[in-house]
Amino acid sequence: MSNSTATPPQSFGVLLFPGFALLDVCGPLEMLNGLSSAVPITISLIALDSLEPVSTMVPVDSSSDETKENVEQQQPRTFQRLCPTHTLDTCPPLDVLVIPGGFGVPNAAKDERVLKFVAESKAQTIITICNGAGILATTGLLDGKRATTNKWWFKEVTSVRHQVNWVHKARWVHDGRFWTSSGISSGMDVVAAYIRETYGEKIGELIPDILEYTPELDSDNDPFVDAWKKYVPSNQTK
Amino acid sequence: MSNSTATPPQSFGVLLFPGFALLDVCGPLEMLNGLSSAVPITISLIALDSLEPVSTMVPVDSSSDETKENVEQQQPRTFQRLCPTHTLDTCPPLDVLVIPGGFGVPNAAKDERVLKFVAESKAQTIITICNGAGILATTGLLDGKRATTNKWWFKEVTSVRHQVNWVHKARWVHDGRFWTSSGISSGMDVVAAYIRETYGEKIGELIPDILEYTPELDSDNDPFVDAWKKYVPSNQTK
Repeated sequence: MSNSTATPPQSFGVLLFPGFALLDVCGPLEMLNGLSSAVPITISLIALDSLEPVSTMVPVDSSSDETKENVEQQQPRTFQRLCPTHTLDTCPPLDVLVIPGGFGVPNAAKDERVLKFVAESKAQTIITICNGAGILATTGLLDGKRATTNKWWFKEVTSVRHQVNWVHKARWVHDGRFWTSSGISSGMDVVAAYIRETYGEKIGELIPDILEYTPELDSDNDPFVDAWKKYVPSNQTK
Repeated sequence: MSNSTATPPQSFGVLLFPGFALLDVCGPLEMLNGLSSAVPITISLIALDSLEPVSTMVPVDSSSDETKENVEQQQPRTFQRLCPTHTLDTCPPLDVLVIPGGFGVPNAAKDERVLKFVAESKAQTIITICNGAGILATTGLLDGKRATTNKWWFKEVTSVRHQVNWVHKARWVHDGRFWTSSGISSGMDVVAAYIRETYGEKIGELIPDILEYTPELDSDNDPFVDAWKKYVPSNQTK
């Protein structure tokens, strides 16, 4: 185990808000499912206020005027629904909190219940995927810390909080309690890196092998800085 | 569009049986969610006989004696539940059927309703992930075809049907209607490859970029043949 962790983390929780990105949640979850074969962990899926299934689709009417057009035009036409196990109010104490991204982030980052839950979290580690970093940044917890987010929305996400030392080219960034990752599929790499550091090399190698996944081992290797230039050049700088 | 496809596929379906592997389903789904931003497709999640959420956990009591011990000892201790949109009986006509793997495959491959649904499918394309190939192989549809499956269970899965030309070292194999892939995360690579071939290079490049995912482009590049030798050497040959 890493020296930075007195006791190995056992209680994981993943925030589930309407409009979460499916792979942001399910990539890390499958890594943690693998981990559960080797380490006695629990995983809570934390909805806002009800145990009804949570959809990856953002209800367009719920979006603010400035984000409504983006959501309507850009979010996938297809969606899925995942079942939560807890709500913000019933969630057990967490060692690790995972905050996914998705088209629902602008709404979630304006929801005082979500911000309070994240800001007051006692979790020793908070991991964000994709634009989920925007929720964490909004709380102010990332101020003065190095962090990254996805490349497609880089400008929008980073503009919510200039006090953060945003790193443009990074697959993931680890600074203190916080692990922040780049776009969607990077969630698997940041969680694989977190597992390696926390539970050691043997388990850190076993879990991606179970998934037959080749994790990125270099946190600085981010090909999507260049890949996205051809689509949205204006988003490529702060 | 590829010449092999008269009309671009629009109706996708993913089989959801108890004990499906989360990433087998959600990796391909996220690729297809991305595709839905560019192409008008639908995705059905097809449960066996009810619209109740389907769990990644195999009910141990439902397993046959020969698989019960494996399931009890090896399956993850944590699980999630995904909501289906249809059942085998209510599923709309499909252009593409996706069959995931997971600890529930041995049960699903003995379920006459599942086998009938797959055997009688009019889908122009059937994609399997991980040991989901075992379900397709059991129907006899793969007889005489080249196909692959995951490396952990390679011996068990391939032994169910010797009439298939099983390929040990492959990230995925495409033969006629059938695209079969290796373990869990390979589902993203096989679906990315299918999208490239079917919808052309531009969309084929855009969809993984949306996911910030670097797809494996070489179907023969399978590092897990060697990676798994250190865990289960006996499973590495037919």
